[in-house]
Amino acid sequence: VRRFVLIGQTASASGDFLLQDLPSSSGRLDALLRALRAALLVSHDVRRDVSVYLVLRGGPSAPRVLRVDGARAKFLRPDERSLATLVKKTLDSVPGTLAELTELRPGVAVRDGDLADVLAEVGEAPCYVLEEGAGDARSHAFATDDAWFFLGDHRGFDPASREMLAARGAVSISVGPLSLHGEDVVTLVNNELDRRFAPPR
Amino acid sequence: VRRFVLIGQTASASGDFLLQDLPSSSGRLDALLRALRAALLVSHDVRRDVSVYLVLRGGPSAPRVLRVDGARAKFLRPDERSLATLVKKTLDSVPGTLAELTELRPGVAVRDGDLADVLAEVGEAPCYVLEEGAGDARSHAFATDDAWFFLGDHRGFDPASREMLAARGAVSISVGPLSLHGEDVVTLVNNELDRRFAPPR
Repeated sequence: VRRFVLIGQTASASGDFLLQDLPSSSGRLDALLRALRAALLVSHDVRRDVSVYLVLRGGPSAPRVLRVDGARAKFLRPDERSLATLVKKTLDSVPGTLAELTELRPGVAVRDGDLADVLAEVGEAPCYVLEEGAGDARSHAFATDDAWFFLGDHRGFDPASREMLAARGAVSISVGPLSLHGEDVVTLVNNELDRRFAPPR
Repeated sequence: VRRFVLIGQTASASGDFLLQDLPSSSGRLDALLRALRAALLVSHDVRRDVSVYLVLRGGPSAPRVLRVDGARAKFLRPDERSLATLVKKTLDSVPGTLAELTELRPGVAVRDGDLADVLAEVGEAPCYVLEEGAGDARSHAFATDDAWFFLGDHRGFDPASREMLAARGAVSISVGPLSLHGEDVVTLVNNELDRRFAPPR
């Protein structure tokens, strides 16, 4: 399973945002939703072997982690408003505190917690941090795509997150010469792994 | 200049669609808007060397061509609703018929017309058709990124478009083993060209 962990420094951890004004009212959750689409959806299908973790650090309910599991998620549509509606409804339905990841809709689970709680799930799987100027993913010898990929948002990584990832032995990789949106980075990582590990069609 | 031409078989050629129900009310213009973002926007910046043509074949005002020119466009935001608002306002402001590409907002031009009218602009530049199963873009010897890239939508290319592109000598290329959304294909083409032609940073 490929796991993408998207850290939203300001992204709303509650459903208190407006669908008609997503970027400002949600603390740029829109950027995370586009990356979620890039991670999970291909033409007319869902990637069953991908899970996405959103680390939501904005607003009074923060921090929370929301996970969308491609193997179990239903009715995922690619447009931003549909994905925002799914996340909003899920966050609105959180019953008080959630100490563990709890499935509130098919394939969509939430917990209170932050990056440290996500890292506690990693086990022995390889971890990668996507960042500019690091070694090229194209020339990296991925042994498996059963791996974790961590992305910052438009603000990058905060020092504490960076330290936690380094302590876990995460390897920094990059995807090209320009500074790209998170969704493009996810697309490029998926493509690189598809070329190495995708079953022939 | 890199030029991406996105053909929307059902995408609305008028502003008669609802921002709160974009996929169904606009004939899947949402998919084209996501590809437009992938073509034009990088982190905190616009690609000045990219132009995007939307070939809009849906609704009573069709066919129309809408062009967004990265060198002149202003206030482009990455979220789908903002891009939909820009396209809606532009299409709403079309004054009757437009025989030539006419700039109605900074960097955004519209004309009546279809793929044939776009192809009339190509001149001697190389043309590429993005499609599954074709030769890999990674192993293609691009001589320049002053080139045209044509993408179908979720329905693919209609036979007439395919014939026109073949008559123009367009070369088919692909970007990997899976069938992807148009926006991911655009991201992968841009990345391939960035790796070959982007100026060092």
